[in-house]
Amino acid sequence: MEKYTYYKAYKGNIIYSENKNTMISKDNSYILVFNGQVKEICYELPEDFPKENIIDFGDRLIIPGFCDMHVHAPQFLQRGIGMDRELLDWLNTYTYPNEAKFKDADHAKKIYTLFVDELIRQGTLHVNCFPSIHYEASEILFDILRERGLFAFTGKLNMDQNSPEYYIEETEQSIVETERFIKEHIKAGEVKASIVPRFSITCSEKLLSGLGELAERYEVPVHSHMCEAVNEMKVCKDLFPDYKNGAEIFYKNKLLGNTPTIMAHCIFMDEDVLELMKNPNCMAVHCPDATSNINAGGIMPVKKLLEMGINLALGSDIGSGASLSIARCIATTIQHSKIRNMFDPQWDAVTLSEAFYMATRSGGRYFEKVGAFEEGYWFNALVVDDSNIYSEDINPLERLERFCYMGDDRNIVRRYIKGKEIGTQGRF
Amino acid sequence: MEKYTYYKAYKGNIIYSENKNTMISKDNSYILVFNGQVKEICYELPEDFPKENIIDFGDRLIIPGFCDMHVHAPQFLQRGIGMDRELLDWLNTYTYPNEAKFKDADHAKKIYTLFVDELIRQGTLHVNCFPSIHYEASEILFDILRERGLFAFTGKLNMDQNSPEYYIEETEQSIVETERFIKEHIKAGEVKASIVPRFSITCSEKLLSGLGELAERYEVPVHSHMCEAVNEMKVCKDLFPDYKNGAEIFYKNKLLGNTPTIMAHCIFMDEDVLELMKNPNCMAVHCPDATSNINAGGIMPVKKLLEMGINLALGSDIGSGASLSIARCIATTIQHSKIRNMFDPQWDAVTLSEAFYMATRSGGRYFEKVGAFEEGYWFNALVVDDSNIYSEDINPLERLERFCYMGDDRNIVRRYIKGKEIGTQGRF
Repeated sequence: MEKYTYYKAYKGNIIYSENKNTMISKDNSYILVFNGQVKEICYELPEDFPKENIIDFGDRLIIPGFCDMHVHAPQFLQRGIGMDRELLDWLNTYTYPNEAKFKDADHAKKIYTLFVDELIRQGTLHVNCFPSIHYEASEILFDILRERGLFAFTGKLNMDQNSPEYYIEETEQSIVETERFIKEHIKAGEVKASIVPRFSITCSEKLLSGLGELAERYEVPVHSHMCEAVNEMKVCKDLFPDYKNGAEIFYKNKLLGNTPTIMAHCIFMDEDVLELMKNPNCMAVHCPDATSNINAGGIMPVKKLLEMGINLALGSDIGSGASLSIARCIATTIQHSKIRNMFDPQWDAVTLSEAFYMATRSGGRYFEKVGAFEEGYWFNALVVDDSNIYSEDINPLERLERFCYMGDDRNIVRRYIKGKEIGTQGRF
Repeated sequence: MEKYTYYKAYKGNIIYSENKNTMISKDNSYILVFNGQVKEICYELPEDFPKENIIDFGDRLIIPGFCDMHVHAPQFLQRGIGMDRELLDWLNTYTYPNEAKFKDADHAKKIYTLFVDELIRQGTLHVNCFPSIHYEASEILFDILRERGLFAFTGKLNMDQNSPEYYIEETEQSIVETERFIKEHIKAGEVKASIVPRFSITCSEKLLSGLGELAERYEVPVHSHMCEAVNEMKVCKDLFPDYKNGAEIFYKNKLLGNTPTIMAHCIFMDEDVLELMKNPNCMAVHCPDATSNINAGGIMPVKKLLEMGINLALGSDIGSGASLSIARCIATTIQHSKIRNMFDPQWDAVTLSEAFYMATRSGGRYFEKVGAFEEGYWFNALVVDDSNIYSEDINPLERLERFCYMGDDRNIVRRYIKGKEIGTQGRF
């Protein structure tokens, strides 16, 4: 048997992030993949490389699959409506009634199947999901993610206060069911159980404390919202007068920094909170589409957080966000940072390199070895064919930029996870 | 011959703007069209209406075709690249070299054919084009717009100073060619010649004065940029010390308000300029995608201008803007107005009703009777099939909202101009 019998070589214009400031762009090169993992990138193949193991994508781009690090799976069907409403009105009119429907397992199965397929169609191969409070529906989501092969965190949502009577849990039961969920689903394939308190307003201190103990005992990731809106932070302070702020509530209840902790929004963080978030176990998720639709009170100062070394990722945050495209989210991140800079010039605009890094390598840091093409990384990749958006005369990095600004799912022509091609089930 | 022999009845969920605050939404209704014009909308057809003249679109939406009131036709191929660059760098690296290529008529023919086809694909049936300085290319664009049946204004660009040596005109020649262009193309089909000085920085006073005389003599519309960026306004003030501001330069040279005057951006307008723009012959064009990409120095206070009664429209402004979708531009207008409101709370966010009005009826006001479905209006319409984005349980207005936030050209399944269906030539 020859050395390269079980290798594959994917040829194309290869792009990935080395770090936030450096994009690696290797034109007309080969990614050598063995056992689903990248071995190396080379301009020429070894002479004895078997021709039948070459997959030649010609002039197309090969980029890492995207990471969507904050997405409400049960809000898939409510995207793009009620966007002119206030947060509370939107929650009560659309979100809570919609999430409550996931009590019905058949509904959950139908919608989560569509949701996961659409994630894949949009090139999201690594995802951090916000579920509903229902055990069975959460299990269904977990299973579908596993069956489709995605890298994912997902759990069972917790909320035991300040929620409508048709969509709320008993504290004790919420903790018991969460523990059961973790024990039965701690990891399957590349899907890992997580702890998902909605946000501190809808969780009692007793619940948060119980969840914190579970996080520590089972070493599972935590996913929630924090420092999202001025109003939310005020209510939070009123509900928890013994704590300085929302971050401290999570921190003192072992839900921030002990295990991988992924916090959506993080728009308004004072110095104390910024310090807590510098912990390498913590990640803030910027959701520009959502932030400009519902509950808009500010824009994350992305450049500031990047400069402080805080781990950052991007999130679609559907249904406040309407689009599951993380490529478009890259463009929106840059655009909103420019608008932010018009009004608050102390922080520069975000660059393509920084936003792409957040969407791939940085976003994927708590999954193992995803989001880049260095040795040992999983070949979790997208092949982008942009011939229909006129690629003449521009280089691969410009083509990637153009794909983010004006491409769509039609431009993603192949998707690989661990070196295995995965398909979609037809549009929607 | 029966009364309705030459009528058509288009059935669907019909939506259009009555004014900025009122959207008319008639479910399962018929638009009766005679000779390309709307006669009435009714819930039931007259008994003697011939069945073969009914076109039943079932549950689909029927909406007016969009108006893109500021778009640089020759920048079609440079969309979505160089977005991290400064304005001057972007102009010199991408824009001027790209526009200069339109000296070649074959190039112009190829690119403008693609451009106009993409406009139609995106549902833009009414358009106000910014051309290049080249007579022949401008003629080609005019002819293609006419052949495809669009309602349009387009002319020959003028610039005689502060431009690169490979892309500049002699003053006298610029005026002579503009007059020739107007005389030979004053109106053909629904395309009307316009006067298009790039902006006051690239036009001498002599040129502007000459163009103003032509505008008055031939009664043609004027299209330019104004009050776009702090820097631009400063340079403008230095170049024209005898004028108070950019608007006065246009005004005193008969290029603002004598004939339909369409000014892109209008972000920074002081009281004097706001007064000038209240003239019913004037329209300001908001280009949110572009403004957040290149030369971003502010966001038009849309709500303020709406409340003052200034005519407003939307523009894709490619290549600063990347997307030709005016539907998406509606969503972006709302999103950016929310971000603006975070930093400057004196102006509320723009509503769906207002943005849709700008994109249709208000944008179309200088074309005759387009952008709505009242009696006498042209049946310039789009049929939207949103079944692939889950229309269950939501009403037509919510479905329109969803289409703007997350739909794309695939959802536009029919396009009509003056009651005649027009096709596209395959994607891109």
